[in-house]
Amino acid sequence: MSIASASRVLNGIGGSPETTRRVREAAAAVGYVPNAIARSLQSQRTGLIALAVEDIGNPVYVAMMRAIEAVVAESGHQLLVHATGGDVAGETALLRRLAHRYVDGMIISPIRITDVHVEALTASPVPVVVVGQLPEDVPVDNVRADSRTGVALAVDHLVGAGRTRIGFVNGPLDTVPGAARDAGFRAAMARHGLAVDPAMVEVGDFQYAAGRAAAERLLARTDPDAIVCANDLIAVGALHALLVAGRRVPEDVALVGMDDTELAQMSFPQISSVSLGSAERGQLAAGLLLDRIADGTLAPRREHVAPSLAVRASSGSVQ
Amino acid sequence: MSIASASRVLNGIGGSPETTRRVREAAAAVGYVPNAIARSLQSQRTGLIALAVEDIGNPVYVAMMRAIEAVVAESGHQLLVHATGGDVAGETALLRRLAHRYVDGMIISPIRITDVHVEALTASPVPVVVVGQLPEDVPVDNVRADSRTGVALAVDHLVGAGRTRIGFVNGPLDTVPGAARDAGFRAAMARHGLAVDPAMVEVGDFQYAAGRAAAERLLARTDPDAIVCANDLIAVGALHALLVAGRRVPEDVALVGMDDTELAQMSFPQISSVSLGSAERGQLAAGLLLDRIADGTLAPRREHVAPSLAVRASSGSVQ
Repeated sequence: MSIASASRVLNGIGGSPETTRRVREAAAAVGYVPNAIARSLQSQRTGLIALAVEDIGNPVYVAMMRAIEAVVAESGHQLLVHATGGDVAGETALLRRLAHRYVDGMIISPIRITDVHVEALTASPVPVVVVGQLPEDVPVDNVRADSRTGVALAVDHLVGAGRTRIGFVNGPLDTVPGAARDAGFRAAMARHGLAVDPAMVEVGDFQYAAGRAAAERLLARTDPDAIVCANDLIAVGALHALLVAGRRVPEDVALVGMDDTELAQMSFPQISSVSLGSAERGQLAAGLLLDRIADGTLAPRREHVAPSLAVRASSGSVQ
Repeated sequence: MSIASASRVLNGIGGSPETTRRVREAAAAVGYVPNAIARSLQSQRTGLIALAVEDIGNPVYVAMMRAIEAVVAESGHQLLVHATGGDVAGETALLRRLAHRYVDGMIISPIRITDVHVEALTASPVPVVVVGQLPEDVPVDNVRADSRTGVALAVDHLVGAGRTRIGFVNGPLDTVPGAARDAGFRAAMARHGLAVDPAMVEVGDFQYAAGRAAAERLLARTDPDAIVCANDLIAVGALHALLVAGRRVPEDVALVGMDDTELAQMSFPQISSVSLGSAERGQLAAGLLLDRIADGTLAPRREHVAPSLAVRASSGSVQ
């Protein structure tokens, strides 16, 4: 039997029952799988799109995830979500796994971008869209927020409301968001001619418990009339630290969070928060990815989403 | 060229460069893919395990997801998470997709179990573990909570603290958890000789906004000294409804939530909550799945996780 007749059998366009059986057995014996997935792998189509975020449990990703899911479902794909743990090893392991083409594309939101990331990103055989900072020369589709301007919106709002003793509770400075938010806070304060008192700045991580502890340390040594928090989890922690310390919010201390998650609206009082447009970023990222899956020859694109401020009871509006 | 020599070439154990090239081209032409994924599909191993939940953004799944992730990572697998949307179509579409063997196994937590679920579950060529209610005769590994007993823990606690006018804010009665929690509430009240006043029972959905609105309706027409909520999102909504209505928690109204999510501890005051053991259920489910992946001949197993109550400030303990 020739390769040509085997081809016809395997392609389903000919062959006697006995020939068909022999060809299928021989093919199976060498690990060749005549099924839909094998064919879809060959054509690089699995119907699956992956989203990789640091921690699925973090509410900052919920709005982004739901926006991506809506676009992906509309296109007939199925979304799957990975948690990377936010470390370089986890993130690059996922990117390297793309060599197996188990999905048609991936949206990844790395907490840092290292050389190893860049190498894995450029080596990927399937399209990847990065949500977050990315060096200009990496030829990968990219959607980014502007948290530096976002922090400025919070400071401008508080200064406009007459607050001058403005504290800041941030996450780690060696993360992209931590560094950007620190720079944004200092630049905005300087623009208003306000000095940044080191006693008014605290760093925890981006979680509730550490945010609350950081706010408690800040309140133990100084007396702010406003606190800007680097995300909503920190802001909820700071709110509880303020309430336990007997400070009224917003009368004594105005509070502004960041990311504008569901948590900000589920707090009492509701917390003003800077939106970094996570739903819009997710929607844009999903669109870029689907475009590239459809046409791999497109030039890499960069999209920026501008921040906005939702003013709620914690900084003065009526709830 | 014979099938036998093609086999040798494709198996990497022989063939001249020219023969190798011809065989590979012929194989590619008919959609046979000589790569790691195709071989892993043949052996039913992808290194991936899926978790399918109604809504990834719901905090009730966070502890479960993290527990599963820890076990799955320890075994050398990578976890991926799907949101099903909580409808039968989404859930069964995912189960049917397992025919493509794109993962080594799946843990699914369906919000309802229909005949279509049962059919898709029993037809799956890869192992599936169901977290939640499952008819006794379905031969699938299963881990379940006992929310009926969980609600009883909340009622017992409140009655023990001297509360008698106990309200209940539930989710939809046509869901498995909604029905079980309603039955549990009525049985526990009856056991204490307390009548269930229809004015004291409200139904929304399992989300914050509807839970808050349901609690507002309840407070507008009656005067409870305690409220049991069918999950923590509802409890946070009820807490805010109580605070807006000027009721002190727990002095005027004690509050108990359910699922014991991070939200309960991130509230102020912190909310007492019945744990249905979501981390333990996740850990058990992941263990059952890995066991079955290793040995498909095991008899189906059923595990039950007992509920427990975390008492916090909202029902009387010191925060």
